[in-house]
Amino acid sequence: MLRLSTSDEGFAEAFRRVVADRRESAVDVAKDVADILAAVRERGDGALADYTQRFDGHDLNQSGWQVDAETCRQAFEALKPELREALELAATRIRAYHEAQLPEDRDYTDAAGVRLGATWRAVDAAGLYVPGGRAAYPSSMLMNAIPAKVAGVERLVVVTPTPKGEVNALVLAAAHLAGVDEVWRVGGAHAVGALAYGTERIAPVDVITGPGNAWVAEAKRQLYGVVGIDMVAGPSEILVIADAKNEPRRIAADLLSQAEHDPTSQSILITDDTAFADAVAAAVETELAALATEQTARTSWSDNGVIVVVGSFDEAPALANALAAEHVEIATDDPEALMKQIRHAGSVFLGRMTPEAVGDYVAGPNHVLPTGRRARFSSGLSVLDFMKRTSFIQLDLAALEAIGPAAVALADAEGLPAHARSIQVRLGQ
Amino acid sequence: MLRLSTSDEGFAEAFRRVVADRRESAVDVAKDVADILAAVRERGDGALADYTQRFDGHDLNQSGWQVDAETCRQAFEALKPELREALELAATRIRAYHEAQLPEDRDYTDAAGVRLGATWRAVDAAGLYVPGGRAAYPSSMLMNAIPAKVAGVERLVVVTPTPKGEVNALVLAAAHLAGVDEVWRVGGAHAVGALAYGTERIAPVDVITGPGNAWVAEAKRQLYGVVGIDMVAGPSEILVIADAKNEPRRIAADLLSQAEHDPTSQSILITDDTAFADAVAAAVETELAALATEQTARTSWSDNGVIVVVGSFDEAPALANALAAEHVEIATDDPEALMKQIRHAGSVFLGRMTPEAVGDYVAGPNHVLPTGRRARFSSGLSVLDFMKRTSFIQLDLAALEAIGPAAVALADAEGLPAHARSIQVRLGQ
Repeated sequence: MLRLSTSDEGFAEAFRRVVADRRESAVDVAKDVADILAAVRERGDGALADYTQRFDGHDLNQSGWQVDAETCRQAFEALKPELREALELAATRIRAYHEAQLPEDRDYTDAAGVRLGATWRAVDAAGLYVPGGRAAYPSSMLMNAIPAKVAGVERLVVVTPTPKGEVNALVLAAAHLAGVDEVWRVGGAHAVGALAYGTERIAPVDVITGPGNAWVAEAKRQLYGVVGIDMVAGPSEILVIADAKNEPRRIAADLLSQAEHDPTSQSILITDDTAFADAVAAAVETELAALATEQTARTSWSDNGVIVVVGSFDEAPALANALAAEHVEIATDDPEALMKQIRHAGSVFLGRMTPEAVGDYVAGPNHVLPTGRRARFSSGLSVLDFMKRTSFIQLDLAALEAIGPAAVALADAEGLPAHARSIQVRLGQ
Repeated sequence: MLRLSTSDEGFAEAFRRVVADRRESAVDVAKDVADILAAVRERGDGALADYTQRFDGHDLNQSGWQVDAETCRQAFEALKPELREALELAATRIRAYHEAQLPEDRDYTDAAGVRLGATWRAVDAAGLYVPGGRAAYPSSMLMNAIPAKVAGVERLVVVTPTPKGEVNALVLAAAHLAGVDEVWRVGGAHAVGALAYGTERIAPVDVITGPGNAWVAEAKRQLYGVVGIDMVAGPSEILVIADAKNEPRRIAADLLSQAEHDPTSQSILITDDTAFADAVAAAVETELAALATEQTARTSWSDNGVIVVVGSFDEAPALANALAAEHVEIATDDPEALMKQIRHAGSVFLGRMTPEAVGDYVAGPNHVLPTGRRARFSSGLSVLDFMKRTSFIQLDLAALEAIGPAAVALADAEGLPAHARSIQVRLGQ
């Protein structure tokens, strides 16, 4: 853990290094991924079967290519009631938040008599990547699948690796609840390629979302433009801005809830009180010792954790804007005042009773958020990622007479005479 | 020009080939671009000066790095009045359409007592790429710059190559009108790298938009994730759906207004009348002979033009959806009925008096639209490309008591005990 104070002589440079550190693997998988995608494009299901045998150790033609809807339904029914109700509460709240996000169509005629508008429509088909093993979270299934269904996507396809043939029952249960239409037992870059290009068995989709390892992320990046993708995701992070009125172990728990995700995760505390900073640091150690995820959380906190002591919270917004963190928790007397000054953040958690973890599961807003300073220019996942807008224009002769001549002048100036001509022939010129 | 009829025996396969043809250059510039971006990242302005000398034949330290605001203002003032008024009309109408596009913030408290919302903010800085030479269009400057300014972008930076030091006065005039803040005389992949990484002179931006050649497009693709980008753009296209009641030369002019852009552009006519198809084909030849852009337009029409005769317009929506064209013109008795069935299109032009060219200049909606079938999943440029959304969540103890236990159950099921703990410590557990 790195301890800084804004009054330190070398603070600016030390903080600049924190901001610049992407914590991303330097492994270059671009060539491997390009080869895999080319193989899937060329050989389709044959390539999928080969890669699955190699990476996941099972034969799709034996173990089955798909998990059927009935299996997903049974997984849901088999959940303990407490867990089923928790998933249902989460789904209901996520659905409500995303339904209110649906954009409105426009259709109006302006003073020049020109009818203008825009129509939003869902994409025909979307693919969700769901990682296997430790990172297979039912909450991620809900956060990706529900916005797609709310947007109106008719065909929602999940691909997920099942190493040695094993499937994750919780994820299947969430797929059932979210209304997923197809679940394919393939993962890795080859599964992403199958979604984009289509194979004999798997029809292509228009948009691919969902988290994955470096190969999956690179496959999405390479296929950007062939299909729509949600975003380039990196290691996640939390920034907690907290005053000394907080209970240290609560803030410690918040920091660790990020740290336990992955060794590359980052937890940062900004406080205006040195003694409180000490108390939180001590509480982190106490909490860590009791945590089943201690090893991951300790590595993350040790390698990437930061505590910054500021002279006053007036200094916090500039620091927060430079970090542009995925999650920003504001546990102060007047969180609203600080939020107004924070321009770059994926999601903000206001007040002392809003631990970030409620946003991961049940609050309603999406937990798929921009990481690695990308909140400067990108947003969390929403229904808009599964929709597209078509603009439309309609003129009658009077409207064309009103605005057409200006278009002719501009077309002439740009050296595009056929553009001008298409208007002139209608104006009898 | 390819002539098809849906009643032809081989139609399905022939049409499939039209849909699959990307008309894109096969030149692989990825390695070159990666080298250029690495050089800019490492050597900054020195690399920019070297590449500018090599590609544009001038020394930035002699010719000047920037075009100042006064030069842009003078270029605007020097325009012929007719042209200045045309640009002003275009700017006013584009601004009005995009202002109505601004998204609304949300802030509400739901039945569980959870406060939820989302705040939209502009990015801090945006960069616009403006090509040099033939493809430098003042209309593109307006279409990129005005949405950025309407979104609220405070620093709007243009990069544009000035081969042999020459600048395009029309483009500078449009930059003045649109309120561009900086104009840098650099172009190519290295200019895109400078916008993304920043150099000693050029501060980095958050979003890069604007058209460019294969190197520029590849640079944007490689930098996706470092910054936001508008889209991957390919050769553009128009689909005209027209019945025999149209005047053939009008439809011919519409087809040629796309063809004159570039030899890789594509113009497609769908009609239900064989004699009308013949008449349009003949009119295209007549119009071509009179066109200053004949060479480009003739190559495009000859290589990529298509006329499809359908048995009835009921067949048109399926063909249009497969093409997912950038521009779709519907010149029939009931264009509305067809539009309702066309799910994938960048922009639709309704009726016999709406040539696509009015949308290029003065109608108001953006002319930067998805090409190469990308209307299946992406939209035209809008204020949203220059904004991002921050969600927020606020709970009090009662709200946490209401929804917190479900989050604890899910965190436990996902094996994330620190997530559960951050809620439990607040509930006194």
